[in-house]
Amino acid sequence: MKILVINPNSTASMTALIGESARLCAFPGTQIEAVNPSGTPASIEGHTDEALSVPAMLDLIRTGETRGIDAYVIACFDDPGLSAAREIAAGPVIGICHAAVQVVTTIATRFSIVTTLPRSVPIIEDLVASYGAGSRCRAVRSVDLPVLALEADPAIAEARLIREIEAARDIDGAEAVVLGCAGMSDLCERLQARTGVPVIDGVRAAIKLAEGLVGGGYATSKIGAYDYPRAKGTCGLAQSA
Amino acid sequence: MKILVINPNSTASMTALIGESARLCAFPGTQIEAVNPSGTPASIEGHTDEALSVPAMLDLIRTGETRGIDAYVIACFDDPGLSAAREIAAGPVIGICHAAVQVVTTIATRFSIVTTLPRSVPIIEDLVASYGAGSRCRAVRSVDLPVLALEADPAIAEARLIREIEAARDIDGAEAVVLGCAGMSDLCERLQARTGVPVIDGVRAAIKLAEGLVGGGYATSKIGAYDYPRAKGTCGLAQSA
Amino acid sequence: MKILVINPNSTASMTALIGESARLCAFPGTQIEAVNPSGTPASIEGHTDEALSVPAMLDLIRTGETRGIDAYVIACFDDPGLSAAREIAAGPVIGICHAAVQVVTTIATRFSIVTTLPRSVPIIEDLVASYGAGSRCRAVRSVDLPVLALEADPAIAEARLIREIEAARDIDGAEAVVLGCAGMSDLCERLQARTGVPVIDGVRAAIKLAEGLVGGGYATSKIGAYDYPRAKGTCGLAQSA
Amino acid sequence: MKILVINPNSTASMTALIGESARLCAFPGTQIEAVNPSGTPASIEGHTDEALSVPAMLDLIRTGETRGIDAYVIACFDDPGLSAAREIAAGPVIGICHAAVQVVTTIATRFSIVTTLPRSVPIIEDLVASYGAGSRCRAVRSVDLPVLALEADPAIAEARLIREIEAARDIDGAEAVVLGCAGMSDLCERLQARTGVPVIDGVRAAIKLAEGLVGGGYATSKIGAYDYPRAKGTCGLAQSA
Amino acid sequence: MKILVINPNSTASMTALIGESARLCAFPGTQIEAVNPSGTPASIEGHTDEALSVPAMLDLIRTGETRGIDAYVIACFDDPGLSAAREIAAGPVIGICHAAVQVVTTIATRFSIVTTLPRSVPIIEDLVASYGAGSRCRAVRSVDLPVLALEADPAIAEARLIREIEAARDIDGAEAVVLGCAGMSDLCERLQARTGVPVIDGVRAAIKLAEGLVGGGYATSKIGAYDYPRAKGTCGLAQSA
Amino acid sequence: MKILVINPNSTASMTALIGESARLCAFPGTQIEAVNPSGTPASIEGHTDEALSVPAMLDLIRTGETRGIDAYVIACFDDPGLSAAREIAAGPVIGICHAAVQVVTTIATRFSIVTTLPRSVPIIEDLVASYGAGSRCRAVRSVDLPVLALEADPAIAEARLIREIEAARDIDGAEAVVLGCAGMSDLCERLQARTGVPVIDGVRAAIKLAEGLVGGGYATSKIGAYDYPRAKGTCGLAQSA
Repeated sequence: MKILVINPNSTASMTALIGESARLCAFPGTQIEAVNPSGTPASIEGHTDEALSVPAMLDLIRTGETRGIDAYVIACFDDPGLSAAREIAAGPVIGICHAAVQVVTTIATRFSIVTTLPRSVPIIEDLVASYGAGSRCRAVRSVDLPVLALEADPAIAEARLIREIEAARDIDGAEAVVLGCAGMSDLCERLQARTGVPVIDGVRAAIKLAEGLVGGGYATSKIGAYDYPRAKGTCGLAQSA
Repeated sequence: MKILVINPNSTASMTALIGESARLCAFPGTQIEAVNPSGTPASIEGHTDEALSVPAMLDLIRTGETRGIDAYVIACFDDPGLSAAREIAAGPVIGICHAAVQVVTTIATRFSIVTTLPRSVPIIEDLVASYGAGSRCRAVRSVDLPVLALEADPAIAEARLIREIEAARDIDGAEAVVLGCAGMSDLCERLQARTGVPVIDGVRAAIKLAEGLVGGGYATSKIGAYDYPRAKGTCGLAQSA
Repeated sequence: MKILVINPNSTASMTALIGESARLCAFPGTQIEAVNPSGTPASIEGHTDEALSVPAMLDLIRTGETRGIDAYVIACFDDPGLSAAREIAAGPVIGICHAAVQVVTTIATRFSIVTTLPRSVPIIEDLVASYGAGSRCRAVRSVDLPVLALEADPAIAEARLIREIEAARDIDGAEAVVLGCAGMSDLCERLQARTGVPVIDGVRAAIKLAEGLVGGGYATSKIGAYDYPRAKGTCGLAQSA
Repeated sequence: MKILVINPNSTASMTALIGESARLCAFPGTQIEAVNPSGTPASIEGHTDEALSVPAMLDLIRTGETRGIDAYVIACFDDPGLSAAREIAAGPVIGICHAAVQVVTTIATRFSIVTTLPRSVPIIEDLVASYGAGSRCRAVRSVDLPVLALEADPAIAEARLIREIEAARDIDGAEAVVLGCAGMSDLCERLQARTGVPVIDGVRAAIKLAEGLVGGGYATSKIGAYDYPRAKGTCGLAQSA
Repeated sequence: MKILVINPNSTASMTALIGESARLCAFPGTQIEAVNPSGTPASIEGHTDEALSVPAMLDLIRTGETRGIDAYVIACFDDPGLSAAREIAAGPVIGICHAAVQVVTTIATRFSIVTTLPRSVPIIEDLVASYGAGSRCRAVRSVDLPVLALEADPAIAEARLIREIEAARDIDGAEAVVLGCAGMSDLCERLQARTGVPVIDGVRAAIKLAEGLVGGGYATSKIGAYDYPRAKGTCGLAQSA
Repeated sequence: MKILVINPNSTASMTALIGESARLCAFPGTQIEAVNPSGTPASIEGHTDEALSVPAMLDLIRTGETRGIDAYVIACFDDPGLSAAREIAAGPVIGICHAAVQVVTTIATRFSIVTTLPRSVPIIEDLVASYGAGSRCRAVRSVDLPVLALEADPAIAEARLIREIEAARDIDGAEAVVLGCAGMSDLCERLQARTGVPVIDGVRAAIKLAEGLVGGGYATSKIGAYDYPRAKGTCGLAQSA
């Protein structure tokens, strides 16, 4: 099966990192292709960055539909454009926040999330609540570093992540911790080893769920909200619908 | 004060209708400018249409910031791009669904919403729930007509709207009804007169709230989630932040 | 338009302060009349004080209906008697807590409230939850001062308010702060200037919403729960209904 | 022990009926006193009727405190003034809606409520939700009769109650039904016998809980929200507190 | 009336302690029988201990039905097997957590719970939320002692309980505290006296509610979820149903 | 990898059916072992049946831990004993209701569930709500047939399932339907083909998730609520812990 992993931002080095994380966990028969659109923000840190990334991301999905992609993973923890992507795709589309929440609620009763900047905290809180896991999420914590600093300054990033993971366990009562940024996926194993706390990376969670959904023959329902977009023109040239 | 009313779709006749509704209810000193982006879908009927409309809509707001706009109204009932718009604007940004919910919960304890297509029902349900009014909203009903049919086939649209408004009152126990599409705003008065049920149009609701917010000196908080977008490049050319 | 601002307690100096705050923010054409009932508690600090204030407040509304009042503002942060007032009034009735919540959720994603006494904290928490904003309200904080001490001891009051507003921003992650007492309305501007945090006063919020609702032609729905009270006698002398 | 059952409306025949229901279910050692204030509305059908009944009801509690009352039951299904009453009383205060909800959630997983007028439906829905039983309450139904018609027209009342109880069982999936008006308490046994559905009357529920709370030595907490009202003047003559 | 109090674990000394607490608060005419199954875990500290205790506990109820038991109290704060027990019993079945929540929400607006081990915290949080009191429960605290240490090391247990009760009042803003383990019931009076905080023991709460339910003639509804278990075989030998 | 699928009831023919469904969807490298305990009820239709099945099911998991089982699936739609099982197992434990909810919320925004007997409806509603999907689940419907009738009377079962699936789509607005009983898993494909509605069987959903969780290296967190049960005796012979 072919899974297209889309990093919605335009930082190719992060796409490479995400692709590597995805390939490391995939089943042997799974083909992972990791891409990013061009022209989108270099990182996604807020609603505007999300909004500016989605149309180009949807184009990648539209193209994917013509070349046999079985499932899509949106590799940004805000799950930008997830519902729109599901309208366009026939197969399953997985957001890494949604996937991480599904995994962590299967292996723990309470968890915390550690993300990059404080401004993303309410975004993630609302997202987790919309997935029905608000009461299981003890806290969304921030390391107060921009997304690209994870790569630029890995030692500081790791030190702060460890501090927050330990605080999640000791102060929040978290039984597991979710990494709240796709750019942290390469640190997952080491953070778990260093802290002794189960650490969930959304990229891996999403790959494993995507494989299962494709393997199980599941497709996005085309009844109702995720039906294909209605054909229509732009610029006031309305088409028949 | 200057209020920029943005119809995110690209159907100019709908923009004109919305602008007319806005001007009819504005205070004398309020300047209403109604615009739509070009190149966006002709109507917004689902998540993809929303996603494809937002970047161009944000451009209109960015330009608005340079020419003295005091507040913005997003005139699509899905409130697309509302949070992103708030990051960009210094002044208030109002979504017509949010505004309608604020008005209707001030004048009634229970309400229903009537929208266009069934596929919009879950979108609106989730939006209303995110505004905290889920338990006050009896039902989101649909007339099963595309957005552009409101204009193309006004007699059928009106007949179906009356039927659903009466059902909202008689079956749902709604004390007031919200029109779930900006393109219905010209029908508001007549529907209320025909049914005897208080009918709320989000365009008018948003104009009146926008005037109040500007008049009260309220600005979007730039602490936290609605802070201005961080400066950054695209295409992997990361900027300092 | 005429807006009647009712301070439900019987402290005339607080009524004057509230009236002044209301007039300062009103549009030129708006007539503000600020009144308080006589015989009600000197301040409202708990459910009993609320209950003892409401009947006399409703009398003021009943009288207001006979002399052309367009909208009413209940200027106590517990919003006492709000639903009953809506039954009596034809036009809109606004509670200052409800108004402040509507404004703050338009300009910020997370907020805290600072009130007077600790005993009011659960009252306000429940009220905010009933308005659907429970998940957006980080905390209800208290300065641990009685209502009348705001006037009697303004320096201490201001110092404690600043301390709590800063704690709201730094500890709670609040993006804006709501003042949880009508008697704080004169401090709003200074607190915002001193802390750099957007500070919302419910009196101003309510005036601006009331102007908008009247300007928009909105009336309280008389279908269902806010219908006029049924005519009936007292003391067992039942009337026809 | 002495329990004061207060019918907040001023219809003495309803007070007698309620007192009779209370005495029939009380333990031998329990003294039931049923009273109503004078000057309050003849029935409670909406928020205004509630508000107008509470101050006189609180006076009855204040007097009760001086003459050895152990617990109070507020015998109106809207539980008007419940929190205020708890501030005044040292012992427990029980509302009949709260009591009925406690009983029914102990003996059934899903229930419906049948009340008098449609305008009371949202009031009761909100009340039940505030007691945390919103998801267990299938529906609040109405017989569309005023409170006093229960007494005036008992045959019609009973026929409609039976119809609604059966609909609750057959359509709502209710496993038990709560009577949503104190004036229905004399019908409880017969309705249960006629329908085969467990029927809960709030008056009885409240008496049994009140006996248990007094017997268990429980008193209203005077820490926080239910502390005694602060001493204060009226008419602007503020007292030290 | 006869109330069977079942300690689901197999520690006879704890059963004796629970029985003593029950008898101390019962009305004169109430016969309390306190039992425990044999072969169940010595204490209940987690879901497995719960699961292993329930079948034997249900046997005690099945036997109770043949010998005139009027109501059952499950004396473990996790309320294990409560719904199953209600299927088997004709009369009411009370869990001590459910009972304590009912009592505490009648006498206080906000409360905290103090339990034994940290691993029980999420269990109790979920239980309280399922009873609809999640928003009234400020915190579930733990003394970090196993259940049996309450008896083995009473001085340490009491010191830690006092510390947590005071923290509940001072930090959480709790107006009352619930003891989160049946094995703490003998300490209730002393903890309340030592701290000045109303302290609720679930055993006493359950006895008083059970007496009231039996006295009120309430029985478990046999319509729907609490109907008697359907007759059926085991080991694949299906019976007619 | 080895997945142990446990049918908690003791009907071997149902275990065979479930095992067949599991094997049909498993990846080639996955070994499926389907078992049932002996001595448990022939079907699970209510809380008592659940409770009586869990201890023997936990024994199967305890044994599984000694013989290299990687993950467990509990193949009853009530997810009985799920939390207890997670305490005992090192690897992941999946309940078929939880799995089906995870799958369906990935491919649809709204769904309904069709189960066997009406008495299971509130059980499943509460379970789905505890998984955070209450607002996405339109309805839990029942075919009003006992579990074993699915096998005994397949034509009637299929006809009623089709009727309810179509009602879910047409009346509830469901975009997909979940089968609410493990014994329906063999009908999944045919029901989907017959109705055109995406139909989710929990057995398949659970197998695919289990494979993903094992493949991703996920284990049950042993911090907090899912830690191994504490060692302890029974019958009052307390062990050191």
